[in-house]
Amino acid sequence: MDYERYDRVRAVTWNDEALDLLDQRVLPMQQARVICHDVGRVAQAIFDLVVRGAPAIGIAAAWGLVLASRQIQAKNGPEARVALADATNTLNAARPTAVNLAWALRRMNAVLANAGDDWRVMLANEAAAIEQEDLAANRHMGRLGAALIEPGSGVLTHCNTGSLATSGFGTALGVIRAGVAEGRVARVFAGETRPWLQGARLTVWELLQDGIPATLIADAAAAHLMSTGQVQWVIVGADRITANGDVANKIGTYALAIAARYHGVKFMVVAPSSTVDMHTATGAEIEIEQRNEAELLGYGGQRTVAEGVRAWNPVFDVTPAALIDAIVTERGVVLQPNAQRMADAWSGADA
Amino acid sequence: MDYERYDRVRAVTWNDEALDLLDQRVLPMQQARVICHDVGRVAQAIFDLVVRGAPAIGIAAAWGLVLASRQIQAKNGPEARVALADATNTLNAARPTAVNLAWALRRMNAVLANAGDDWRVMLANEAAAIEQEDLAANRHMGRLGAALIEPGSGVLTHCNTGSLATSGFGTALGVIRAGVAEGRVARVFAGETRPWLQGARLTVWELLQDGIPATLIADAAAAHLMSTGQVQWVIVGADRITANGDVANKIGTYALAIAARYHGVKFMVVAPSSTVDMHTATGAEIEIEQRNEAELLGYGGQRTVAEGVRAWNPVFDVTPAALIDAIVTERGVVLQPNAQRMADAWSGADA
Repeated sequence: MDYERYDRVRAVTWNDEALDLLDQRVLPMQQARVICHDVGRVAQAIFDLVVRGAPAIGIAAAWGLVLASRQIQAKNGPEARVALADATNTLNAARPTAVNLAWALRRMNAVLANAGDDWRVMLANEAAAIEQEDLAANRHMGRLGAALIEPGSGVLTHCNTGSLATSGFGTALGVIRAGVAEGRVARVFAGETRPWLQGARLTVWELLQDGIPATLIADAAAAHLMSTGQVQWVIVGADRITANGDVANKIGTYALAIAARYHGVKFMVVAPSSTVDMHTATGAEIEIEQRNEAELLGYGGQRTVAEGVRAWNPVFDVTPAALIDAIVTERGVVLQPNAQRMADAWSGADA
Repeated sequence: MDYERYDRVRAVTWNDEALDLLDQRVLPMQQARVICHDVGRVAQAIFDLVVRGAPAIGIAAAWGLVLASRQIQAKNGPEARVALADATNTLNAARPTAVNLAWALRRMNAVLANAGDDWRVMLANEAAAIEQEDLAANRHMGRLGAALIEPGSGVLTHCNTGSLATSGFGTALGVIRAGVAEGRVARVFAGETRPWLQGARLTVWELLQDGIPATLIADAAAAHLMSTGQVQWVIVGADRITANGDVANKIGTYALAIAARYHGVKFMVVAPSSTVDMHTATGAEIEIEQRNEAELLGYGGQRTVAEGVRAWNPVFDVTPAALIDAIVTERGVVLQPNAQRMADAWSGADA
């Protein structure tokens, strides 16, 4: 399949001299780039949300460490590791809750632990590997997920899980891309995803660059859309998947899953296996992060809500496994997930 | 019960010389008033959405005709009716789809048909009666609806159905006001109601004026909120109720009803009996109006979505009677509505 044709946007580009980031703060009204020549600029860009999406943040951090390596002298990997400790800490502190950020930096430092005088090459190769493995995993998940979709189907997605959030292709959006490429997906709908509007600002823009027309809807219109018969699958990403198959994801995912089940619409979760947390039994154990209520009191610096009003602004919600038809990772597909099926799929794995 | 204490806002105020409208276009950031001294200004204010909400529009139009009557000479009602035909048409054209607008103007003209030389007094009395009957109906519905709510309950509402949309007190918001006054409602949540943000801009502001703290949520957070056990009733208004108890209301209502049923949360619809359309069998016969997609392509006048993106923007959705626990009108309560129970409640009525 000609997947490249449907994957033209890159959030993070390494050009051997600098890290080139698409500025996601100003998309889609401006297509600006932030060129980072040193690790401090990379850390600032992560902190400022120039780059967002867990996999994309991890990749940016890996290249940030490569930039830092050019400012130091070291005879071998272990020496370099010590010399890069400050840079590693700076990057880690830029988004402390981003799992992939810490994971990528651990992986980069692990390479140094065993490297000799070729440590610079090893470090750059590892950053490239992190990026390439993510892209390969996304394309593989795309293929696996698309195979579940009947030709001619309509799909609805939420938030942004695309090339902007990853090395490319995306997770849930990768399945949609593959589905379009294979002629399985005939209609794409995207919820605007209040309060940050990732769907409205990022997802529909990203798909438009690839010639995939997506129709934007208010989040509250999803159930009505399902009642019209235009949607056969809801396809979303995940921030965390627990041992029983419960899924924490962007606020609004749970409502879509309930409405999907009510209408007999199928529900698919697509995420890299690093998202699966077999040490947490169920979604009930996940603490839901509350974000600043100011996000709901206006948009883009323009206040729309009266002074004195309080808002409740959970970032995530938990969708119970019972409402999920398929969990797709690069390791395979778990249909009708539950604790037993998740354990079977993960047995022998290092998770 | 001291209902007045919880009902301080007035969208439409008649002062014997002019019609004083609270400008809902700029709420809540500004509290501006539009003073209308002639019928043209009233019609323009209706067209411009200075005043909104079906009952409030009807009341404004009735007073607009009173203002028009001061510009004409007529010996009796029938003569006045002819002289006021242009004014009636101008008002009717301001919001052609607003059922209550046409209804109020028909009622005003019917009074003129039988009036003698006291037609000016009769006309002004009829406008006052339309306003007072609406307020009385709202308070009565408030009492009926609140009686269904267990003390200490949390409620969630959608859009704006309050004093801003009516002569005062409101429909769904009237039940919430009565529930607060009676100590039955302990927590109020309001969905922001994209794309127009009636919940975020109007409902929480209006309640704040009455000292009722309401918590604003993203529409997509409602299901997650229900899962926390903080909400016992979802209470909404209606644009149209069909003979079997199906309810057309603001987009997002249907999703709330599905999520409510999933969580065992009760669902109440509150609307004046003029909303009930016994000539339409089911909600499937209601054509859902699509609004301009531009409403979804920005936020508060600020464009947020890329050029070339299409949006799907239905104004209403239909909630099936099977998901509704109670329909409250000023005529009484229909529990677990269906065609038989609706027919029983409406038998002998002129609807």
